[in-house]
Amino acid sequence: MTIPASGLQIRSEVRADGTLHLSLVDEPTRAPGPNDVLVRIEAAPLNPSDLGLLFGGADMTTATASGTAGRPEVTATLPPAAVAMMAGRAGQSLPVGNEGGGVVIAAGSSPAAQALLGETVGVLGGAMYSQFRTLNVAQCLALPEGVTPSQGASCFVNPLTALGMTETMKREGHKALVHTAAASNLGQMLVKLCKADGIPLVNVVRRPEQAALLRSIGAEHVCDSSSPSFMADLTGAMADTGATIAFDAIGGGRQGGQILAAMEAAAARAMPEFSRYGSTVHKQLYIYGGLDRGPTEFNRAFGMAWSMGGWLLTPFLERIGPAAAQALRERVASEITTTFASAYTREVSLAETLSLEAIAVYGKQATGEKYLVTPQKSLA
Amino acid sequence: MTIPASGLQIRSEVRADGTLHLSLVDEPTRAPGPNDVLVRIEAAPLNPSDLGLLFGGADMTTATASGTAGRPEVTATLPPAAVAMMAGRAGQSLPVGNEGGGVVIAAGSSPAAQALLGETVGVLGGAMYSQFRTLNVAQCLALPEGVTPSQGASCFVNPLTALGMTETMKREGHKALVHTAAASNLGQMLVKLCKADGIPLVNVVRRPEQAALLRSIGAEHVCDSSSPSFMADLTGAMADTGATIAFDAIGGGRQGGQILAAMEAAAARAMPEFSRYGSTVHKQLYIYGGLDRGPTEFNRAFGMAWSMGGWLLTPFLERIGPAAAQALRERVASEITTTFASAYTREVSLAETLSLEAIAVYGKQATGEKYLVTPQKSLA
Repeated sequence: MTIPASGLQIRSEVRADGTLHLSLVDEPTRAPGPNDVLVRIEAAPLNPSDLGLLFGGADMTTATASGTAGRPEVTATLPPAAVAMMAGRAGQSLPVGNEGGGVVIAAGSSPAAQALLGETVGVLGGAMYSQFRTLNVAQCLALPEGVTPSQGASCFVNPLTALGMTETMKREGHKALVHTAAASNLGQMLVKLCKADGIPLVNVVRRPEQAALLRSIGAEHVCDSSSPSFMADLTGAMADTGATIAFDAIGGGRQGGQILAAMEAAAARAMPEFSRYGSTVHKQLYIYGGLDRGPTEFNRAFGMAWSMGGWLLTPFLERIGPAAAQALRERVASEITTTFASAYTREVSLAETLSLEAIAVYGKQATGEKYLVTPQKSLA
Repeated sequence: MTIPASGLQIRSEVRADGTLHLSLVDEPTRAPGPNDVLVRIEAAPLNPSDLGLLFGGADMTTATASGTAGRPEVTATLPPAAVAMMAGRAGQSLPVGNEGGGVVIAAGSSPAAQALLGETVGVLGGAMYSQFRTLNVAQCLALPEGVTPSQGASCFVNPLTALGMTETMKREGHKALVHTAAASNLGQMLVKLCKADGIPLVNVVRRPEQAALLRSIGAEHVCDSSSPSFMADLTGAMADTGATIAFDAIGGGRQGGQILAAMEAAAARAMPEFSRYGSTVHKQLYIYGGLDRGPTEFNRAFGMAWSMGGWLLTPFLERIGPAAAQALRERVASEITTTFASAYTREVSLAETLSLEAIAVYGKQATGEKYLVTPQKSLA
């Protein structure tokens, strides 16, 4: 196999004038070092966690297209507040794409690298919206026989996040958990995982059709925030499950506080006497996403035994240590077509990824609309 | 010494009709068991943490007085939202007052109880707005020779809270701390404690005269939230001190989020490259009070490595264990007239405590206005 000299790669640049520029560049291929492999990237998902880097805080309703069919360019404007927040990346042309799936077409001399030659792998490490990536073997997860690169494209972010939630729940002494934006790809995966592991799960969604979707895949506790009985439903679900930890993808608005208040109301039902400090049951909310970019607001109607904080996959994996993290990865590989299977609504080439029409759909991060970038697909 | 048959005690009752009733009752004295002592309560502070129980969420601007000079009564109305929150205590006539200072006038048969006979003690355990209290020896802190009951009345809440803050800081791996409403009695104590222990402290206040007061007692970093340069001052103080943990007495509003944002801005200055997840420096905000009862609001402009939560003294002392907690108490006793000295603006009898005129002052929880209840003072 000859190593290709270069391959196309999506780039995102925020300029000092407050504009975002998306483009395709021809990126030279780096020859693998002893412990590296060269992966032909066949598929890479457009995860919510990729869009922040891709769009750089720009208002994508201002996007305009230029360039050619094979080398499209997109320009958009950042709101003034975003310009300051993006100052740290101004002027840098950044590659994008946290994870993907592909085939190892060249390998370094080490036994670990050689063992991967010809294998289908899930890969993590940025710049996956590229045709070729040279990666350390530690960034690759070998997939079982018969698994395709598309099936293995989402081995890390969603599966490890779902496992990270249930692991965090166990390690912090909780016995049931709450998840918001629960009809998402990740949310559906969490339903399957919790079912497999016997973990009671409270799913919070925003629309009746999302509740129906989750029930159709076996979710037991589903609370629809658009329902007038939402707070009562939520409190009932907390009482039924004993959930005292929540993972929130929304971030902004009042729902995080409502979840803590429902946990407290369920705990208060079991209290023998009044305490002005509320229950002693510790209630935890982790914010891991920002689907609502607006401010977070809550009225602290949940006593004093509560905590709210950011949650990110990478620091979590560092905290649990390499052996525990590897065990989670191996579970993902073995269940990638069942518990951890992902579904996509459309496959797009690198060029199509930069079309205004595609951006208008995947940029919304709407539940049920998930795109898969397929860098080997012909450009137009 | 004959044991008095009874003594006066302040009671607070929220009734099902949404009214608060404050009164004085004659409470029978309980004879000490083997490990108990009977304390003549000479002084008990009106701490912010007492006012929630005393007022039961009532709107004290609606308060009316009745009863007699010796047996005053106060009635006030609860806002509708407070009625639901106080449902757990409805119809119960509750005694009030977390801590106090007094003299042991009778003691049980155990050596520990007998050792306290005649001693001046700081006491903790509720119902301290009373003339007499029977308490377990574990609820008493023997004070050094020459310390008066008034000097020892605030041995627990403020001193142990201040020590709890610096201990939490150390145990959670931070090296400097931030305190809000920093001109309070507790805040001034924290200035003295941090100075004694060499801990960098960032004091946040709301008015220039509070900043001046803190500087006059030796505070080094003082940020006034009424100043136009507040955010820049705060960020500068974070950078100077390396503070990554804050204790917030305010609760409501945006200041908690501003503190985390200033910590993040200081951390970002030291970052080698841009990360869309912000710095990896963990930033902690503990809310331990609710001077602003309104909603808490923040825009999450501080990356993902952050946490916000309730902090209460009692669970903290339980977490560190009895030996560590006792060491903190003994330090308080030995420094009660220096590091942990409290100042009061006025002494009030039990009856005066229930006067509308006094309530109008101490109920505001204004900085520099702290009352001391002196239950042995003649009633009128």
